[in-house]
Amino acid sequence: MPGSRTLARELRVHRNTVIAAYEQLAGEGWTEPQQARGTFVAHSVPRPPQRPRRNGPSPVGSAGSAGFEVRGADGRSAGTPQGGLRPLSEGAPDVRLAPVGELTRAYRRVLRHGAPDLLAYGHPQGHPRLRAALAELLRSRRAIAADAEHLVVTSGSQMALELAARALLQPGDTVAVEALGYRPAWRVFRQHGAALAAVPLDAGGLDVAALEALAERTALRAVYVTPHHQYPTTVTLSAPRRMALLELARRKRFAIIEDDYDHEFHYEGRPVLPIASADRAGVVLYVGTLAKVLAPGVRLGYLLAPPPLPPILTALRTGIDRQGDHAVECAVADLLERGELQRHVQRARRTYRARRDHGVSVLKRELRGSISFTPPSGGMTLWAEAAVGIDVEAWAQRLQGRGWQVLTGRHYAYDEAVRPNLRLAFASYEEQEFAEAIGQLRAAL
Amino acid sequence: MPGSRTLARELRVHRNTVIAAYEQLAGEGWTEPQQARGTFVAHSVPRPPQRPRRNGPSPVGSAGSAGFEVRGADGRSAGTPQGGLRPLSEGAPDVRLAPVGELTRAYRRVLRHGAPDLLAYGHPQGHPRLRAALAELLRSRRAIAADAEHLVVTSGSQMALELAARALLQPGDTVAVEALGYRPAWRVFRQHGAALAAVPLDAGGLDVAALEALAERTALRAVYVTPHHQYPTTVTLSAPRRMALLELARRKRFAIIEDDYDHEFHYEGRPVLPIASADRAGVVLYVGTLAKVLAPGVRLGYLLAPPPLPPILTALRTGIDRQGDHAVECAVADLLERGELQRHVQRARRTYRARRDHGVSVLKRELRGSISFTPPSGGMTLWAEAAVGIDVEAWAQRLQGRGWQVLTGRHYAYDEAVRPNLRLAFASYEEQEFAEAIGQLRAAL
Repeated sequence: MPGSRTLARELRVHRNTVIAAYEQLAGEGWTEPQQARGTFVAHSVPRPPQRPRRNGPSPVGSAGSAGFEVRGADGRSAGTPQGGLRPLSEGAPDVRLAPVGELTRAYRRVLRHGAPDLLAYGHPQGHPRLRAALAELLRSRRAIAADAEHLVVTSGSQMALELAARALLQPGDTVAVEALGYRPAWRVFRQHGAALAAVPLDAGGLDVAALEALAERTALRAVYVTPHHQYPTTVTLSAPRRMALLELARRKRFAIIEDDYDHEFHYEGRPVLPIASADRAGVVLYVGTLAKVLAPGVRLGYLLAPPPLPPILTALRTGIDRQGDHAVECAVADLLERGELQRHVQRARRTYRARRDHGVSVLKRELRGSISFTPPSGGMTLWAEAAVGIDVEAWAQRLQGRGWQVLTGRHYAYDEAVRPNLRLAFASYEEQEFAEAIGQLRAAL
Repeated sequence: MPGSRTLARELRVHRNTVIAAYEQLAGEGWTEPQQARGTFVAHSVPRPPQRPRRNGPSPVGSAGSAGFEVRGADGRSAGTPQGGLRPLSEGAPDVRLAPVGELTRAYRRVLRHGAPDLLAYGHPQGHPRLRAALAELLRSRRAIAADAEHLVVTSGSQMALELAARALLQPGDTVAVEALGYRPAWRVFRQHGAALAAVPLDAGGLDVAALEALAERTALRAVYVTPHHQYPTTVTLSAPRRMALLELARRKRFAIIEDDYDHEFHYEGRPVLPIASADRAGVVLYVGTLAKVLAPGVRLGYLLAPPPLPPILTALRTGIDRQGDHAVECAVADLLERGELQRHVQRARRTYRARRDHGVSVLKRELRGSISFTPPSGGMTLWAEAAVGIDVEAWAQRLQGRGWQVLTGRHYAYDEAVRPNLRLAFASYEEQEFAEAIGQLRAAL
């Protein structure tokens, strides 16, 4: 290659610039400087790869494609809602009510006081301050003898389910699930090799006698339940069944994965205490979330598990994402310590109860004779049954033409069979909005 | 049960209180109200479980233990640093330099303007604004033809590795790794069923000829590499080897998982461009992180992958934790759009380069004859070799007695064999602190 002086003169740049460029080339191995002889192109530089043929692979990031075999490209979707449709079945809180100002102030406050530490690597089990605040919440509001050492903070309840599945399951294990239930949980169990068995539901919730019969036939590793407001039917599991379930799990030595996703939002009397509050045998893995209490976008959930699981779950989390965001965790701990989150929940519960009452009357007025339902005692949604002769699938299809997406019984059914049900979400809409949505539903009938 | 009037008189409470209590009991299924006859204890309430025996299981949350078989309780730890020891080998940035004020202001700003949406469920692939900002960064600073549609935002680079492993690996696949390398990545590959094969390193980085020989013997599914500053030896993979590696992957149709964890922190000339920048065959899965650029505690990483992988990776993420925290993602996008993060990186790079220069001179002065090393051209750490006759394991052990933890070659070695190396982290300590640490290291010799 030309000498640095020659090239600098030729390019009209400072010689130091050329020297810097030559050093960079040598540093990357493109050239080999040879003492007193000058700079030479490295012997070992291979010929550049052929230009891709037309229709051949093009660069990553453009419209090209992978240069290796891609498995499982079929049948997997990102699971996002259908574009443009407004969801009429999503059991989400109304994020317009979320305490945004309180959250941003808490975030600033905790970083101002704890900044260097909160930004460094921390404990994957979750920030001790949030674990302490959550344990206090579980003790004082849910009568669970929770110890912060047995809590693992997670990125939403989905990660709690993922960790529980990883810790519990091996290929060939059987997990019992509700015959109508929460598909994202089922997917996680299947992904970790479990075979699932569906247990029927009735007006009292999960049919524990049927579960017992199943447990006599098959060794169960776990049962996944949503006892407070059964997902999606909203039925509360009755006290006798809770006790029978605990006793069965203790006797058969299987785990109860209790997903208590909307504990606070009970509108008739006090919330029913979780099964975990009565667990003296160490059989319950208790899954909670702040998605409804605060907001789904703040990705915080937790898993309370009996020893020796907590350090195992923590180690499993390090493999997934090392740890959570401790600044956000501390900000939420701060909101709990100040009672701000509890006050928000009280306000939101009043709002949602009023929306339920309003929603019930709108539905009775607008869809009398077309649907029937039991007003839910809690939660964000209502489970309706269409009258005989109404094709709910066609109804939902017609509603899509009007810009709304409603999910039918089939969507929640383990057997994927058509059922005459609709899930209607009232909590996230103002009364006027819900009335309009139901107007569309009626028009699509 | 007594009538409500009777009980109210007896307990001296208002009758409505008793009625509310009775309703709660009935609602939970403890009692069965019978029209005109009164309230009766439900027939179906089972006998309460036996009190646990002494030494028997006690409640979850206390010192009790699981009432089901716990697998894998041995040998798994939370992977936390040893209590109380100051880390002398952790390749972390100095979080005291992090732009905390900028971050909290950005968080408040994005929530003020985008609050309801940012707190609701969003797209699991990552907020479009952050993906756009990252794609722009990769295009302008790293010459990668990155398209935001092909980027998946993750919770730190650990989740990027987890997703890559899930998407690529099946039991029985072989993944080639560096003979000295990053154990948390290896764990992820093993967890997804891969067999690992170690490829030797030399002064030019990964021995690509050895990899080629391996690829001729064994069908490789992927190779995991840290080409910029090899972890932990800090060697930069030479340009000829990069091109040979790309060509080999193209020909043998395996994936290159390129972990570019500290791209910006190069102190000699410009950073060397990633392998991904020259990938025309769609073989590179490019893993990046904001842990060093911003802070490890803000859990943001990303994965750039060729089609059709991005939607598959996104679907896999929904199963793990549904999505990231979009308020935090947007706040960081805001910092990137304003150039605040780039300015922070420039300042931090100057600081770390000065600390490297200082660290090199301290080590040459204090440990001359005991260790040798090549000053690293980038990164946060230095890879030293102890002189013949020095037992590094015993040295590290003695240093622990002085309150510091240094990790030896064995810690990074695939074969776990003793090697005469020490990893010394200079970036996260001020010059005086590092000099003190090295004083302790010398005293422990």
